[in-house]
Amino acid sequence: MRIQLDQDILQDHDEQAARNGAELAARGIMAVNLMSAPGSGKTTLLEATIPLLQQQVRVGVIEGDVATTLDAARVATLGVPAVQINTAHFGSTCHLDARMVAAGLQQLPLDDIDLLFIENVGNLICPAAFRLGEHLRALILSITEGEDKPAKYPRMFHEAHSVLINKIDLAPHLDIDPERLVQRVKEVNPTAAIMQVSARTGVGVAEWAQWLLERRRLLVSG
Amino acid sequence: MRIQLDQDILQDHDEQAARNGAELAARGIMAVNLMSAPGSGKTTLLEATIPLLQQQVRVGVIEGDVATTLDAARVATLGVPAVQINTAHFGSTCHLDARMVAAGLQQLPLDDIDLLFIENVGNLICPAAFRLGEHLRALILSITEGEDKPAKYPRMFHEAHSVLINKIDLAPHLDIDPERLVQRVKEVNPTAAIMQVSARTGVGVAEWAQWLLERRRLLVSG
Repeated sequence: MRIQLDQDILQDHDEQAARNGAELAARGIMAVNLMSAPGSGKTTLLEATIPLLQQQVRVGVIEGDVATTLDAARVATLGVPAVQINTAHFGSTCHLDARMVAAGLQQLPLDDIDLLFIENVGNLICPAAFRLGEHLRALILSITEGEDKPAKYPRMFHEAHSVLINKIDLAPHLDIDPERLVQRVKEVNPTAAIMQVSARTGVGVAEWAQWLLERRRLLVSG
Repeated sequence: MRIQLDQDILQDHDEQAARNGAELAARGIMAVNLMSAPGSGKTTLLEATIPLLQQQVRVGVIEGDVATTLDAARVATLGVPAVQINTAHFGSTCHLDARMVAAGLQQLPLDDIDLLFIENVGNLICPAAFRLGEHLRALILSITEGEDKPAKYPRMFHEAHSVLINKIDLAPHLDIDPERLVQRVKEVNPTAAIMQVSARTGVGVAEWAQWLLERRRLLVSG
């Protein structure tokens, strides 16, 4: 009985996610679900990426956290519309879900957005199980987290369209080999676009922005 | 109805946790629940700490991960009994629970253990809600994760008896101030023992080992 209930709930989520995705696509908005462990640098990467994107598209952001509005405040300083969802108001769940995102969409000026980032709650497990209506899933992995993470969190890596290895500037100070980490990612997900970036120094950020713009062109023209 | 069901389940967990903790204490075993985000260095810290502890006590380890037995294999090379729990066999939950730990205890030679580490699944949210039977909760935070984490994951920080700021050797390469991070931890948890450590260089590890030994003396003599 409990399993049945949970399956119904997951089905409700999937249906809401499909509605979110269809509404966004109909408006020409590509939604990107940004997922990572806590502290991998999702928000800092957004701060580095958004100014590059703004030369060509209009950006919006939904920020997800258990608590605080710190991240929405950070990205709002870039002049983009941003709303914060705190899961503390939804049972402190460790992930966003499609209903929360639908509520967030109602607070955004969708006519003024071409590319929407949805920054998920920092967690390498449960966000993989909940579709939000996104058209792309990007996984951020800080190189400091180690070479074993793709094997340990396989579902998250498996379902990502792109994997960004962030904080690559710290590689000289670690006992971690970036190339070996890339291989570990490929073993779990052979088709993801893998990029080595540093949100802090800017390395690789232009390539990531170009990849997003190209994917949006394909979505809108398709 | 669903809420009632979940409350019953949580109560079952709490009762099992109390049984685990009582059995361990009766045997003179102190159990430490190690919690952190993925890649904060829990296992590397264990590898640095266990040799220091082994001079005075016998150590055992329960390793928790969604998938792989990598970590149990790593700590077993130190000559300590270690069992791996994969939550992939329990619905891929993002945390250990008391029933999993009870199953793990049955596979360990408890007569030969004085101090048991329970390395939780990498996650800064849900592990805070599930008691395992531990006598201490230690939270590991990699300094690379940023100064905002105590405010963003308050329950985890609030319930820790000690907070270890790990990878402190990377501080010169980051835009993060260790002292300000300590302040952020204190704002959420004024009573936790806060230690700055580097599992890689060994800085602070002896202090952490001494703290554990002292806490065990208090538990066993109490």
